[in-house]
Amino acid sequence: MGRKVFVTFEPIGRRVVSEEGETLLDVARQAGIHINASCGGSGVCGKCRIVVEEGRVDAEKSEKINSADFAGGVRLACSSTIMENVKVRIPLASSMQKGGLNDDAVVRRRALEHQFDIEELRREGIFSPPVEKLALELPRPSGTDNMADAGRIVQGLKNQYDEHGLTMGLTVLRKIGRTLREKDFNVTVTLARPVRTRGRTHVVNIQSGNWVNRKFGLAVDIGTTTVWGQLLDLNTGRVLAHCGDYNGQISYGEDVISRIIYAEKPKGAELMQELVVGTINTIIDRLLAETAVDRDEIDSITIAANTTMTHLFLALEPHSIRRAPYVPVSTFFPPVRATDLGLSLKNHAIVLPYPAISSYVGGDIVAGVMGSGMYRTDKLTLYIDIGTNAEIVIGSREWLVCAACSAGPAFEGGGITFGLRAAEGAITDFSLDPQTFEPMNITIGRKPPVGICGSGLLIIVATLFEHGVIDQRGKFNRTLATPRIRQGRSGFEYVLVWRGESAIDTDIVINEVDIENFIRAKAAIYAGMKTLVEEVGLQITDLEQIILAGAFGSYIDLDSAMTVGLLPEFDAEKILYVGNGSLMGARMSEMSNHIRRHVVEVVQKMTSFELSEVPHFKEQYVASLFLPHTDMDLFPQTAKRRNGAPAGGGN
Amino acid sequence: MGRKVFVTFEPIGRRVVSEEGETLLDVARQAGIHINASCGGSGVCGKCRIVVEEGRVDAEKSEKINSADFAGGVRLACSSTIMENVKVRIPLASSMQKGGLNDDAVVRRRALEHQFDIEELRREGIFSPPVEKLALELPRPSGTDNMADAGRIVQGLKNQYDEHGLTMGLTVLRKIGRTLREKDFNVTVTLARPVRTRGRTHVVNIQSGNWVNRKFGLAVDIGTTTVWGQLLDLNTGRVLAHCGDYNGQISYGEDVISRIIYAEKPKGAELMQELVVGTINTIIDRLLAETAVDRDEIDSITIAANTTMTHLFLALEPHSIRRAPYVPVSTFFPPVRATDLGLSLKNHAIVLPYPAISSYVGGDIVAGVMGSGMYRTDKLTLYIDIGTNAEIVIGSREWLVCAACSAGPAFEGGGITFGLRAAEGAITDFSLDPQTFEPMNITIGRKPPVGICGSGLLIIVATLFEHGVIDQRGKFNRTLATPRIRQGRSGFEYVLVWRGESAIDTDIVINEVDIENFIRAKAAIYAGMKTLVEEVGLQITDLEQIILAGAFGSYIDLDSAMTVGLLPEFDAEKILYVGNGSLMGARMSEMSNHIRRHVVEVVQKMTSFELSEVPHFKEQYVASLFLPHTDMDLFPQTAKRRNGAPAGGGN
Repeated sequence: MGRKVFVTFEPIGRRVVSEEGETLLDVARQAGIHINASCGGSGVCGKCRIVVEEGRVDAEKSEKINSADFAGGVRLACSSTIMENVKVRIPLASSMQKGGLNDDAVVRRRALEHQFDIEELRREGIFSPPVEKLALELPRPSGTDNMADAGRIVQGLKNQYDEHGLTMGLTVLRKIGRTLREKDFNVTVTLARPVRTRGRTHVVNIQSGNWVNRKFGLAVDIGTTTVWGQLLDLNTGRVLAHCGDYNGQISYGEDVISRIIYAEKPKGAELMQELVVGTINTIIDRLLAETAVDRDEIDSITIAANTTMTHLFLALEPHSIRRAPYVPVSTFFPPVRATDLGLSLKNHAIVLPYPAISSYVGGDIVAGVMGSGMYRTDKLTLYIDIGTNAEIVIGSREWLVCAACSAGPAFEGGGITFGLRAAEGAITDFSLDPQTFEPMNITIGRKPPVGICGSGLLIIVATLFEHGVIDQRGKFNRTLATPRIRQGRSGFEYVLVWRGESAIDTDIVINEVDIENFIRAKAAIYAGMKTLVEEVGLQITDLEQIILAGAFGSYIDLDSAMTVGLLPEFDAEKILYVGNGSLMGARMSEMSNHIRRHVVEVVQKMTSFELSEVPHFKEQYVASLFLPHTDMDLFPQTAKRRNGAPAGGGN
Repeated sequence: MGRKVFVTFEPIGRRVVSEEGETLLDVARQAGIHINASCGGSGVCGKCRIVVEEGRVDAEKSEKINSADFAGGVRLACSSTIMENVKVRIPLASSMQKGGLNDDAVVRRRALEHQFDIEELRREGIFSPPVEKLALELPRPSGTDNMADAGRIVQGLKNQYDEHGLTMGLTVLRKIGRTLREKDFNVTVTLARPVRTRGRTHVVNIQSGNWVNRKFGLAVDIGTTTVWGQLLDLNTGRVLAHCGDYNGQISYGEDVISRIIYAEKPKGAELMQELVVGTINTIIDRLLAETAVDRDEIDSITIAANTTMTHLFLALEPHSIRRAPYVPVSTFFPPVRATDLGLSLKNHAIVLPYPAISSYVGGDIVAGVMGSGMYRTDKLTLYIDIGTNAEIVIGSREWLVCAACSAGPAFEGGGITFGLRAAEGAITDFSLDPQTFEPMNITIGRKPPVGICGSGLLIIVATLFEHGVIDQRGKFNRTLATPRIRQGRSGFEYVLVWRGESAIDTDIVINEVDIENFIRAKAAIYAGMKTLVEEVGLQITDLEQIILAGAFGSYIDLDSAMTVGLLPEFDAEKILYVGNGSLMGARMSEMSNHIRRHVVEVVQKMTSFELSEVPHFKEQYVASLFLPHTDMDLFPQTAKRRNGAPAGGGN
């Protein structure tokens, strides 16, 4: 974006700092200033009319504005790009009707981004990639010194670097003869350090000449939906390239269960394995194409994934994962030669899969716990990754407990009438005029609305609840004077977007069944957290830090999450967002053998709870099937706000 | 053969014990009784006429015997099969002319056969195959116990067998899910013990049900010429089947050097690898076909081979082996998955190659040192395997030194005008009438002679020398009155077989160049032994035991070997023959993990000498270029016998 510019909103005279190139609607939204806009900011509904009083905006004339108005400075906020300092007036028709532009409007608070810090590893002395390169200048063999080539290298490593107990596999042995002689017995040897302290160091590669400055690794996160990869410079710790792609398995089912079912068919497992390997190979190709790194310079690749994805990637039988009592084949996975799995790397490259905890708390979560530093914090931390399942880890450096909650797909748009994944045209932000109950929808890409994505759903439910449009059970207040609330096919519903303003030739609504599904999802997560924390004899209020992981976590509006009871009420400063925790953990392991060692300890330390087996979980769940909770004492802020809400709730 | 029968030879009245079905010529030969027979016992020359005086022999009438003679009991000894007790008379024309049938004739003394004794391993408590099978009856998973399958097995092994620190590879992980559930969590787990005491035990296979009584392994010796394999029952230690075949590489050269040269061509190494693997696969197929053992019941295969064969089998670059300073790629070889090498075994089977000492003292020799028990004897022992190279090891449990001598191919028939490998028609035994110098040739299979094999060559040279037909330098005594000694194309020669009696339509001779090549070969070996033993400050006379290995060793006539100075003069009771020492060692390692551990110690302990780098070797070699040696004090028995020889030597 461009340079800073100021936007003054009248009649309240609020001056907001913004950037050249933003739209007026976005600026208002970020400042918590409501402007009616039900078409998602796509210029269709024409309701976000404002008048530019000073300065200039860049806006084409809309058919919704007649020539006289346009000449008088009337523009649509959604399609007006700021070019310089401006003053705009929001007419009554476009604003919230009561109280005008209020300063108490909800500002979207996202979690603070916590970035992986290579410097932190260096400071702590644990920047120690599992792969090391050492240069050797060896004496040429002679009649009195005709030790075998392999022995000469081992001897050199012993004499020059004090390396002992080395092993060498066939792939290295097959090339050392010519490699030694290419540059007169000057070579670079790649060592892979063992995870166990008592383990042996493996000589995994040999190159002629000195290549100690070129040491690269890959970190890969295999998500059920998306696979992400990073090419890492293991000398500097820098990420040289980063890219992602849809998991090639996706056309065989969106969730892990459908993938397992497919894998149970004849040749199904082979296909699943080939597909995900194909995706990773595509990513590797792109990462290498973006950099000046050669394929054979990659010595190791750390993979983090949920348990099902790890099983399918390694061609382990996933059958029992989806059947009670939900038993994976393994939670620890041996290092595997990349070529054995079909990866397009050289045969010296080793795949290091992250260990898992159980069928539904996988290596992706373990990686997140490692990558976020949770495993070495003193603070009592809640780590949560929300998707179809929400995986929860509670603890600190001393102890860790974890569980998976079946949240259902509501947060990914599943089971919601107009739900969809985060994509262009998905409603992602929302506010409500508390008098007219007219909405302001903001869509991704400012396209005409096509549906509601997870983060939008959260804000919609929270906003409807906060303004008394729905009650604690998620039922509509049928007494409100607005045509947007009406009887629909699935109970009462609220019209978010009229047909004429939507991109899908029908009204976009949220109905009571949608809200019920949402509440069930958030209840499962909250009940999981509460059960887990109470199982170890603590209370939610004892938590000192929350770490959010996953795509959903980055977009989550914290206030909405607390309003509906998805997250406990918590100081927003103490909520961190780590993004793709799985990929971060994979990267950390590629960069620090200390961390790889700790992974084993962490996995052995982490106690996994099967929530369905915990007696109180069901009660907790039922108690959570309210907004925010049956026990309002847990949500004092929400209780306070809601009591002051303009229109009282339905209960 | 059949029951015992007695043969009385007249006129000396010597009674010999024999067996029904043997020929009279064989009985005489074994008793050291000379009967002229230059055609190798094939009935062609008609010189071995005898008269049966009592009893009956089975013999067809030969064209060499007229009807009157046949009626009078005249037969050819070579084609007379003994049926019962007989008395035969050797006419003067068929016998040695002077002194008639003497009692001092040389009796062929072979080395005592030393057999690998499984009971010895049991007694010493080292019968401990590297692969172990344990039966587990595991609890079924439940809601409160949904540990991963792999974890359940590890836990079971820990609880029931106190096994710790186990590792499990992908091949096992890929099958444990269904295997556990096939027989209600009753399984048999195969563990591979580490060679290093601090190493980890690997879980290499899992089967449903109880299979602890079925545990099998393979021992394979890859010879340059022949590959031998044995299928072993690792519970009882028994060899269930045994077979061999020509090494498939043989059509690309008979010796290791020509194989290396071929391997240096484009795709040559791949072809060499495929060929030897193909041979092993053929052997495996035959071994399995002979037994009721399933292919997937084989968990490990120990391979012993010379350094070049090991390199070609593992597809390591053999280039530097044949070039000074003769550097192999490696002398230690990692365990390799059988399927990675193309072996037709299941992918849980592990190949364990024997470590080598140097380019020319290979894993076959190390295996022999292990298999013969030399590594744990208190006796100062000489271990020697004679082929194109003679590998020599000297030492005991305390220390070991070794060297390879380039003997050249004389003992395998190479460089000898009529030399050939041991095959039908090859002259393998020989004696001489000291007056007429008429020969008695014995051929393999009693076929008309086609040439001379290694063991025959040794006896021929020793006999010619002992009877003064050749002198200490191997030159013919040109004064002897026999048409068999004559000027030939390559110096003087002795006609072993006249054209009419040979199978190859030409006279079969041994000439001075052949004898020179033989002397060079035996000199290299003797000089190697003497140099090696003196390098450690000892004398040949300090040796307490000699172990002969290899095919040649089994046929070697000890007296001849001492007469020509190939072996030092030594009490024949202290010379042991171990046969295929390489295969024996491979079998021992398959049966005893203790031995596998000791192999590493032995290899590290063994000091390898490069004879060409030892200052005195050349002198020793030159001094050995005489029969038996320039220093006759080293061979007092031979000196004594030769001084009493009927016709004095030429020097």
